[in-house]
Amino acid sequence: MKINGKLIQSIWFDETAQELSIIDQTLLPHQFSKLTLESLDAVCHAIISMQVRGAPLIGITAAFGVYLALRDQPGQLDNSCQRLLQTRPTAVNLHWALRRVHSSIVKLDSNEQAQAALAIARQLLAEDAASCSAIGDHGLQVLERIWQQKQQTHTDPEQSPVLNVLTHCNAGWLATADWGTALSPIYKAHMQGIPIHVWVDETRPRNQGAALTAWELKQQGVAHTVIVDNAGGHLMQHGLVDVCLVGSDRTTASGDVCNKIGTYLKALAAHDNNIPFYAALPVSTVDFALHDGVREIPIEQRHGEEVSHLAGLDAEGVLRQIRVTPVGTRVSNFGFDVTPARLITGLITELGIFPATASGLQALQKLVVKP
Amino acid sequence: MKINGKLIQSIWFDETAQELSIIDQTLLPHQFSKLTLESLDAVCHAIISMQVRGAPLIGITAAFGVYLALRDQPGQLDNSCQRLLQTRPTAVNLHWALRRVHSSIVKLDSNEQAQAALAIARQLLAEDAASCSAIGDHGLQVLERIWQQKQQTHTDPEQSPVLNVLTHCNAGWLATADWGTALSPIYKAHMQGIPIHVWVDETRPRNQGAALTAWELKQQGVAHTVIVDNAGGHLMQHGLVDVCLVGSDRTTASGDVCNKIGTYLKALAAHDNNIPFYAALPVSTVDFALHDGVREIPIEQRHGEEVSHLAGLDAEGVLRQIRVTPVGTRVSNFGFDVTPARLITGLITELGIFPATASGLQALQKLVVKP
Repeated sequence: MKINGKLIQSIWFDETAQELSIIDQTLLPHQFSKLTLESLDAVCHAIISMQVRGAPLIGITAAFGVYLALRDQPGQLDNSCQRLLQTRPTAVNLHWALRRVHSSIVKLDSNEQAQAALAIARQLLAEDAASCSAIGDHGLQVLERIWQQKQQTHTDPEQSPVLNVLTHCNAGWLATADWGTALSPIYKAHMQGIPIHVWVDETRPRNQGAALTAWELKQQGVAHTVIVDNAGGHLMQHGLVDVCLVGSDRTTASGDVCNKIGTYLKALAAHDNNIPFYAALPVSTVDFALHDGVREIPIEQRHGEEVSHLAGLDAEGVLRQIRVTPVGTRVSNFGFDVTPARLITGLITELGIFPATASGLQALQKLVVKP
Repeated sequence: MKINGKLIQSIWFDETAQELSIIDQTLLPHQFSKLTLESLDAVCHAIISMQVRGAPLIGITAAFGVYLALRDQPGQLDNSCQRLLQTRPTAVNLHWALRRVHSSIVKLDSNEQAQAALAIARQLLAEDAASCSAIGDHGLQVLERIWQQKQQTHTDPEQSPVLNVLTHCNAGWLATADWGTALSPIYKAHMQGIPIHVWVDETRPRNQGAALTAWELKQQGVAHTVIVDNAGGHLMQHGLVDVCLVGSDRTTASGDVCNKIGTYLKALAAHDNNIPFYAALPVSTVDFALHDGVREIPIEQRHGEEVSHLAGLDAEGVLRQIRVTPVGTRVSNFGFDVTPARLITGLITELGIFPATASGLQALQKLVVKP
C-alpha cells in the first residue's frame, strides 16, 4: 500500500544488506519508523512487544526469524521454531508458518537450511500478499451487493447514501504482507468508487483501531470515524452500520472466529440488529483440528499495564505514557475472544466466501492445496 | 461513604459560609479535590464539564444551582431552570429535579423563592441518599439469592467461591447523594460479609469505571479488577460473571434503560450467556411519558476530544493529556445507548424490584407518591 504516496510493504528483506525491516507499529500513528531486526532475539522481541502484530504478519516474520537464526547458527532449526512458537499463543498462523518452514527444510543439510528458510519466508510473504488481494476481490462482491441494496432502498433526496462499514482492531495491510484481510475489501471498494465510510473501533487496550486502522485509512484516503468500543451497538440500533467486517486470528472447523477482544460483542449487536457480520481471513488462520472455539482456543493474557497505562502525544508533541487507573488497581487483560459461528454471516477467504458452518469449512478444506 | 476513613457525601452545602461544595470528579482518581461552586454559572459549568456527573447527582446539583441563581438575582426562576436544563440532554433527573423545584416555588414571592429552593435542594439530597440506601437493600436480596445458588453449585474444593459482579461506568456514591445505585447493593453485600468481586468496565471515553468506580471500591475495601470494555463478553462466556448490575440515566415506561454508552453490548452478552442483568435506579430516572427508548430518548453527543485525548498521570506524577488518534482524525462521541427491556432481568428501585415490562412499570407508577 502507499504511505505518503510511496508503495511499501509491512515487512521486507534486503538480501545484500542482510537486513530484515519492519515498521515499528508500537509508534504509530505518531511516528512512522522503520526497524531492522538483526537476530532471532530481535524477531522474538518484535513479536512479543507487538512491534509487528496481526496473525498473517506474525507468521511471516517468524519465518524470517528462522532464517536469521540458521544464518547465525546453523542447526538451530528446532530450537528457533520452539522459541518463536512461544511468542504469542492465540494466532494459529504462527504455528502454520513455522510448520511450513520446518517441514520444508528439516531434511536438508544444516548448511543448506538457512537459504531454504529464506526462500520459504519470501514465498509466504508473496503468498500472503496475493491471498489478501484475493480476499479483497471476494469481499468486494459482498460490499457491492450491500451497496446496491442500500442504493435501491435509499429514499432521502437530501443526502447521498454512503456505505457504512464497522471494523474492530486492525486487520489491514499492517497486519499482513499487503492489502490486509478485513480492510482489503474496503480498499478495493474505495478504488471502485463506492462511497465507503468506516467506523473504526478504537480497540482497547492497545488502540490498534484508533492508532493503526485510522492511520492506514487516512493514508489511502478512505473516509472514516474513530469511535470508542462501546459505541458500535448504538450505531447499529440507529441504522448507521450496513455491514461489519473483522479479521480472525484463529478460525475453527465449525466456523467460530477468535479475534481481538470485543469482536464477540460487536457480533452480538450485529445479530440483534440484522446487520451482516463477516470475518475476512486467509485459510492459514483456520485450525481444522478445533471445533469449539470458546472451549478450545487458548486466549493470551497480556500485561496489565496495557490496560492501566496509555501512550500518546502530549501538547508539545512528546510521546508519553500515562496511567489512567488508581495506583495499584488490579487489572485483567485477555487479548482475544471467540465469536460463535452462529453470529457470523460468512467467512471471506482467498478461495471464496464460505458459510461459518461445519459443512462450509469442509468445503473450504477440500479446496486447500497441501503445501 | 468513607474516604480515607472519613464520612463524606458527594455534594454538601454550608449555609453559614454560603458554599456549595462538590468533589471535582474530573481529577479522580489522581487527585481528591473539593470545589466550591459560587454561582449559577459555576454550577452549569460543573455539570457540562462533568465535574459533577451521574443522573441523580446532576439533578441535586441543579436544584442547588437554582438556589444560587435566586440568591444572587431574585426573579430568575424560569431563566435559571432553562439554563440548567440545557446542560445535559439525556438524564431525566435533571428535568425531574428542576420541575420539583420550579413547581414548589413558582407561586411564592420572588424574595422567598431562594430560601424555598434551598430547602427543596436539601430535601432532594436527603431523599436521594435514602433512595439509594433502599436500592441497596432491595438489590442485596438479589445478590444474596445469586450467591446462595452459586454456593450450592460450587464443586471445586480447591477454591472458595466468590460472587462476581460486572458493572459499567460509575453508578456509585459519586453519582448520587450517597451509596450509589448499581454499587449500593454491592456495598451492602460487602458489609454483610459476602465475598464479592467486581469486574469494573473502564468505560471509555471518560473512563469513569477505571477512574471513579475503581477508586470508590478501593476506598470501601471491595475487591475489584479493571477490564477494558471489550472484555466483558469473554468473561461471561467463561463463567466468570454471575450477575451484571448497572445504573440508568433514563428508564422508559416499557422498561428500556438508557445508560452510559456500551451498556447495551453488555446486556446482549449477558442475555447470550444466561446471566442476570439488572439496572438499579431511583424512580426519578423513570420517564413514564416514553415507551420506545431507542427511538425517543435524545442521546447526547459530546466533544470528540473525549475520544481522541486521554488524561492521566505520567511517570513523574504530573497530570497530562495525550492524544491517541492521528492528527485531524474524525471522531464521534455518543454518550449513551439504550438497552431494550427484553434484555433486562429486573429494575431495582427504592420501592422494590420490578420486571422491565410495561406492566412492571405500571405497578411501580402506582406506588409513586406525587410530590
